[in-house]
Amino acid sequence: MTDDLLGRRQSALAPSYELFYDDPIEIVRGKGVHLYDANGKEYLDCYNNVASVGHSHPRVVEALTRQASTLNTHTRYLHHSVVDLAERLEVKLGGDLSSAFFVCTGSEANDLAVRIARNVTGHNGVIVNDHSYHGNSTLIDQLSLSHRRPGDRVPDWIGVAEAPNTYRGTHTGGGAGVHYAGDVRRAGIRLRDSGVGVAAFLVDSTWDANGFLNAPKDYLSLAARHVRDLGGLVIADEVQAGYCRTGETWWGFEDYDIVPDIVTLGKPMGAGHPVAAVITTPEIARSFAEADSYFNTFGGNPVSCEVALAVIDVIDDEQLLDNVDIVGAVLRDGLEQLSRTHDIIGTIHGKGLFWGVELVGDRETKEPMSESRVNGIVSDLCDHGVLTGTNGPHHNIIKIRPPLVFSEADASQALEALDGALVRFAQENGNCS
Amino acid sequence: MTDDLLGRRQSALAPSYELFYDDPIEIVRGKGVHLYDANGKEYLDCYNNVASVGHSHPRVVEALTRQASTLNTHTRYLHHSVVDLAERLEVKLGGDLSSAFFVCTGSEANDLAVRIARNVTGHNGVIVNDHSYHGNSTLIDQLSLSHRRPGDRVPDWIGVAEAPNTYRGTHTGGGAGVHYAGDVRRAGIRLRDSGVGVAAFLVDSTWDANGFLNAPKDYLSLAARHVRDLGGLVIADEVQAGYCRTGETWWGFEDYDIVPDIVTLGKPMGAGHPVAAVITTPEIARSFAEADSYFNTFGGNPVSCEVALAVIDVIDDEQLLDNVDIVGAVLRDGLEQLSRTHDIIGTIHGKGLFWGVELVGDRETKEPMSESRVNGIVSDLCDHGVLTGTNGPHHNIIKIRPPLVFSEADASQALEALDGALVRFAQENGNCS
Repeated sequence: MTDDLLGRRQSALAPSYELFYDDPIEIVRGKGVHLYDANGKEYLDCYNNVASVGHSHPRVVEALTRQASTLNTHTRYLHHSVVDLAERLEVKLGGDLSSAFFVCTGSEANDLAVRIARNVTGHNGVIVNDHSYHGNSTLIDQLSLSHRRPGDRVPDWIGVAEAPNTYRGTHTGGGAGVHYAGDVRRAGIRLRDSGVGVAAFLVDSTWDANGFLNAPKDYLSLAARHVRDLGGLVIADEVQAGYCRTGETWWGFEDYDIVPDIVTLGKPMGAGHPVAAVITTPEIARSFAEADSYFNTFGGNPVSCEVALAVIDVIDDEQLLDNVDIVGAVLRDGLEQLSRTHDIIGTIHGKGLFWGVELVGDRETKEPMSESRVNGIVSDLCDHGVLTGTNGPHHNIIKIRPPLVFSEADASQALEALDGALVRFAQENGNCS
Repeated sequence: MTDDLLGRRQSALAPSYELFYDDPIEIVRGKGVHLYDANGKEYLDCYNNVASVGHSHPRVVEALTRQASTLNTHTRYLHHSVVDLAERLEVKLGGDLSSAFFVCTGSEANDLAVRIARNVTGHNGVIVNDHSYHGNSTLIDQLSLSHRRPGDRVPDWIGVAEAPNTYRGTHTGGGAGVHYAGDVRRAGIRLRDSGVGVAAFLVDSTWDANGFLNAPKDYLSLAARHVRDLGGLVIADEVQAGYCRTGETWWGFEDYDIVPDIVTLGKPMGAGHPVAAVITTPEIARSFAEADSYFNTFGGNPVSCEVALAVIDVIDDEQLLDNVDIVGAVLRDGLEQLSRTHDIIGTIHGKGLFWGVELVGDRETKEPMSESRVNGIVSDLCDHGVLTGTNGPHHNIIKIRPPLVFSEADASQALEALDGALVRFAQENGNCS
C-alpha cells in the first residue's frame, strides 16, 4: 500500500519533494505527541513544532469547525476575530509592537517584513547570519543562506554575518558576543559603503538552520545597536523561536533582552493551519502605509484567526510555557548525561523544547559525523518509534523539537531511545566511541 | 458595536488594511450565496469568488473537520491526500501538466512559478500585461502593475505588454489579437536585447485587475508563440480564471486554445482555506529540481488537500460548470438589457460568472465615470443588500463575481438591484443618462 503510494507520489508531485528517513513513513493519524502510521505503529513525535499544542487538539479542531461552519471571508469586511487576535498578540509582545498584518506563512511574513523595512528606511540591504533559513519566497529564499548550492553567489544587497556559534565558530570564549556582534556591524558597513545601505538585520534567535545556537547573551543587543546606528531595523524572525518554544518567555528575542522593530510569526501559530503575522510599531506601520500598499486575500480570515486564538488559549490554559521549562530541564539534564556516556556527542545546543545534539567523529578536532551516519541514527530512532530530524551546516545535528505538550515521561522515553540508538551505533561501528 | 469594533480595528491592525463600502459592514455569518451582518441583514454575495462553492458549504466543513481531527502534518511523511489532489488536478488540466507543487496562496504560487521559469530558461525577464495583478510577495508585487504608485519605476527585468482591451485600448477592431500579441513580442524583444532575456509571460486570462477583458480569441496563442520563440515559458495565472469561473471550461486558458507551460491556482481552490498550487510538465519540474530546492511547510498538508478535494467534488457533483453557463447567460442577457436602458454603461466585459460593468460619463468619448461616483453606486447596492466591488485602471468598473452556486433567481435579483441603483443614480444626478 505504502509502496504504491510512493510510486503515485513520485509520478504526481514535482521531484523537489523529499521524504524523511531512509524508509519513509506513511502517517495517517495524530493525537497529542503521538503519530500513527498506516500499520498502526505508534511514534513519539520529537520533531514537529508546527503541531505546537499537540496533534489534533480538540479545542483547535472545535474552533476550526465552528468558524468554518459560520463564516470564512476576508478583512475587507469588519470581523471581530482578526481584531481579537491582533490584540491578544500585542499583549503577548508588549511595548510598542502593536500594529499587525496577517498573512498565511512564515515566508510571507518575512517577505513582507523585509519589504516594510526597505520602504521605511529607504535602504535595500539586509543582514542575515550565515547558514540562516527564513523561508521560501523568491526574496526570502535568497536570504536563506542554508539553501545556497555550491557556486551560488550571494547577491550584493545581502550582508552575511557569522552565526554566533560558540562551539564551532571563530570565537568560542569570552567576548564572543562582542566579536559576533562586530561581524554584524562589519556586514552593515559593507552594505553602507557599497551604497545599498542597511534596511534590516533579519535574525532567528534559535538559529534553527545551524542546529540551534545558544548565542552569547549580549550578542543581539550589541548587534541591534550596530544595525540601528547604520539606520537599519531589527526583524526578529519568531517563526521558530516564538510561542514558548525556548522556555521562560513567550518569544525568543526576550531571552536576549532586545525589543525588535518588527516581529514575524508563523509555524506554531495555527497548530498546522496556515496562519502567520507581521507585527511592528504604529510608527513603522504608518510609514509603510504611506509608501506602499498590502493586501493578503486569506490573511486574517475569521477561520485562521479563530484557530490562532484557540492556540493561544490552549497555551495559556494548559500552562504550556511552564511545561516547556519543566520538561526542557529534563531534556537538558538527560542530554548532558548522554553526552558524558557517548563520545560521539560533540556538544548539546538548545533550551526549552528545542535541542540540537551535535555528533562528531572526534571530540578533539570536532570533525562532524558524516551526514549518512547521522541519517542512519535518525532513521534507527524512527524504526524504534521516535521521530527526530537532522540539521546544521554539516547535517550532523539531531534536532529534537517536540510539540509543547511533551511530558516528562515523553522526555524520558525520548532520552532512552536516543541512548539506545547511540549504543547500537557504537556497536555497529566497532564501539569506536 | 460595529463602531467600537472599527475603532479597535484601527488601533490593532496596520493602516494598510482597508474596508469595502462607504459604510463598512460587519459580516458575521455566511451560507451559500448569502452573507449576514451583525444586525441580521441579509446580503446577496455577487463578489466573492474565494467562497467558490458557496459560503460554509457543509461538505467543505465536513472535510476540514474530519481531517483536522485525524491528522494535519506536512509532505515529508507519505500521505494519500496530497497525491489524490495532484492526480485530480492533473486530470482536470490534462495533457502534460502533471507535476504539482502545493503552496498556501496564489501569491506563493506565482512567486514559485516565476522562480521555476527563471531557473529553467536561464533568463530573468518577465512579461506581464499593463495594469496586471498577480499577488503580494515582494517579487510578484513588482509584477502587479495595478499596484504601481505615481512615479514608481518599472524594473528593467519586467516587460510591459498592453492589456488586450478591445473597448479602450489602442486597437479595438479587426486584427486586434495580432496587434496585442505583437506588443507581447515587442516587450520580449526589449528584454532580450537588454540582456535579461525572457523567462516567462505571466498572464491572467480574465485580466481581473483590468475589470475583466474579453481578449481577441487568437491573442494568447499568438502571444504564446512569440514568447516561446524568445525562449520563454507561458505561465497561466488561473487564480482568478480557473475552477469554472469563466464557464464552458474548467480553466480560463482553455477558452483561448493554449496549453501553458506552468499553471498557478489559488483563491477558489479551498473555498476560503489557504491552499494553492503550481502545476507544470515533468520536464520543467525535473529541470527546476536540478537547479534549485523548494519546500513549503504548510503546502500540501492533509487538511488543505482534503478541503481542496472536497471543493472539486462539490463542483463536479453539483454540476457547477453547467450552472456557470446557465446563470452566466442570464447575467449576460440581463446586463446587455441594462446597457440598452442606462447610457452610463459604456460596455459590458466578461463571461461565465465574472462580469465587469464599465461606467462612463459619456458613451462617445468613453470618459470614465469618476471613482467616487462608482463607489457611490456600489455602496448604494450594498445598502440595498447586494455586494459587488469596483475594478479597472480607472476604478470605473463594477465587478460581479459571485460564488459558483449562484442561481438564476440570484442573477435576476442582482440585475434588478443594479437596475435600481442605476435608476437612483440617474435621478440623483439630474437624469443625466
